[in-house]
Amino acid sequence: MSAKLTIQQIQQRIDRSPANRWLGITVLDLEDSGITLQMPVRAEMTGNPDTRVLHGGFMGCLIDTACSFAVIAQTGESVVTIDLSVDFHEAQRSPLLVATASVLRIGRRIASTEVRVTEADGRLVASGRAVFANVPFTPHARRKDSGSRSP
Amino acid sequence: MSAKLTIQQIQQRIDRSPANRWLGITVLDLEDSGITLQMPVRAEMTGNPDTRVLHGGFMGCLIDTACSFAVIAQTGESVVTIDLSVDFHEAQRSPLLVATASVLRIGRRIASTEVRVTEADGRLVASGRAVFANVPFTPHARRKDSGSRSP
Amino acid sequence: MSAKLTIQQIQQRIDRSPANRWLGITVLDLEDSGITLQMPVRAEMTGNPDTRVLHGGFMGCLIDTACSFAVIAQTGESVVTIDLSVDFHEAQRSPLLVATASVLRIGRRIASTEVRVTEADGRLVASGRAVFANVPFTPHARRKDSGSRSP
Amino acid sequence: MSAKLTIQQIQQRIDRSPANRWLGITVLDLEDSGITLQMPVRAEMTGNPDTRVLHGGFMGCLIDTACSFAVIAQTGESVVTIDLSVDFHEAQRSPLLVATASVLRIGRRIASTEVRVTEADGRLVASGRAVFANVPFTPHARRKDSGSRSP
Repeated sequence: MSAKLTIQQIQQRIDRSPANRWLGITVLDLEDSGITLQMPVRAEMTGNPDTRVLHGGFMGCLIDTACSFAVIAQTGESVVTIDLSVDFHEAQRSPLLVATASVLRIGRRIASTEVRVTEADGRLVASGRAVFANVPFTPHARRKDSGSRSP
Repeated sequence: MSAKLTIQQIQQRIDRSPANRWLGITVLDLEDSGITLQMPVRAEMTGNPDTRVLHGGFMGCLIDTACSFAVIAQTGESVVTIDLSVDFHEAQRSPLLVATASVLRIGRRIASTEVRVTEADGRLVASGRAVFANVPFTPHARRKDSGSRSP
Repeated sequence: MSAKLTIQQIQQRIDRSPANRWLGITVLDLEDSGITLQMPVRAEMTGNPDTRVLHGGFMGCLIDTACSFAVIAQTGESVVTIDLSVDFHEAQRSPLLVATASVLRIGRRIASTEVRVTEADGRLVASGRAVFANVPFTPHARRKDSGSRSP
Repeated sequence: MSAKLTIQQIQQRIDRSPANRWLGITVLDLEDSGITLQMPVRAEMTGNPDTRVLHGGFMGCLIDTACSFAVIAQTGESVVTIDLSVDFHEAQRSPLLVATASVLRIGRRIASTEVRVTEADGRLVASGRAVFANVPFTPHARRKDSGSRSP
């Protein structure tokens, strides 16, 4: 497999999404079967005022975006998330999280992915996996009737 | 099981978290073995500018908060998320999501939960489950060394 | 929703599978949106010779069969498991496990389910969920090229 | 990390379990942070008489054993499965499945793992992950009161 989109095209599609813009997600690298993204930890993502550790849900945001764009980079098409899971390994400490997502398999209808989230020092803070339905990409699609579609 | 905390006490603990305040999560109801919360869909949570459907990760935010407070309501203690998963059933359409989370089991060290997310009309848009480690609640805890802790 | 198949037809399709026959799975009840099955704990399913507790994987066998037949009962079609998860709550103690699986949503291509596994006394020992692809039922299908198909 | 147990000691502990003996699981290799096991596909594991494809639950058996022994190899202790998930990528075709499980993190109380299942030709047929509670190993332990314990 080799990517159908360039880093610039992927960043452009990431930036089409208000959520991804707010999350501040940027592409760091594009590999043969995956993609590496980073997300800064905003103050609004803090789950606990004392520990200042990330609210777990925002790890899910990073994982959903990373896994979906690992597929989109290969297919050029859009995806709809079928399901998503996150394993938390260590408390996030640094202000920047790096997610490396890989495609496990892209079938005709279903794509499977996995992801690892590390901090700058390489510490593994979370891992996850997600399954997507592949759908045709339409740059200005109308409202769809199912799933949480990524552009 | 009956709740150790009142709705007001739970709302207060939800509001201690910058993330939960930004997410706008409020308690609707407290049941014997669970809790019902709501979250408004902010413009910044939109995954696709055309469909205006929620970015899947924010469903994870609602699910993490709902499941964790289903446990916290029973124990009065804090929790650290071990893992979390989300199944997406239908595209979110309404501007308000309602999550009903239930405790499946609270053990000495581990608590298991499940959740359903519906819209105002009762349509099931997502479901999920989460597992937590139970940890003592310290209102002004210092930074912990693992997991994504909820107050 | 109402079931397309009778208990007898479902039991017949369960019995077509060598695995389900070996597992000894039988239908107890058929509900509007789900199904209740039972599985005896065979000596070969014991994970530990001292504790004689079930090997966790066999809980996955029961869950896969229960969830898939919750869908099959509604559609009459076959399914291919996309993914499956199990949460373990208590050690199995009794020689008979009862699984009640429910359909969360049947879409055109994807079906989502959840399940609870209890013992005779009502104790919840495990829960789970599974997602399936719907595929046409062909009683004497040739080898398919993906997934783990249930008849 | 380096393994505390040898391949022979691991095989011995695998063989203490009636389930693992019936499943026919043998250790192929022991790596710094993981383990490789194989499982033959018995006729009784066939989910569909026509396609002769593995019943999905037995993939869960292999994954539970592989992930638990990835941890046990490092710690020498026993584990109790907290949760387990399986993603199915392709139909199993060959009579022998190979699972390579890796430790993601071993904490004081919780251990996280992931696994890939391939066939002889390297084809990826499934992947999965599991979370365990670490418990002291007692060769002739009495019945425990929670989880599905691996020896």
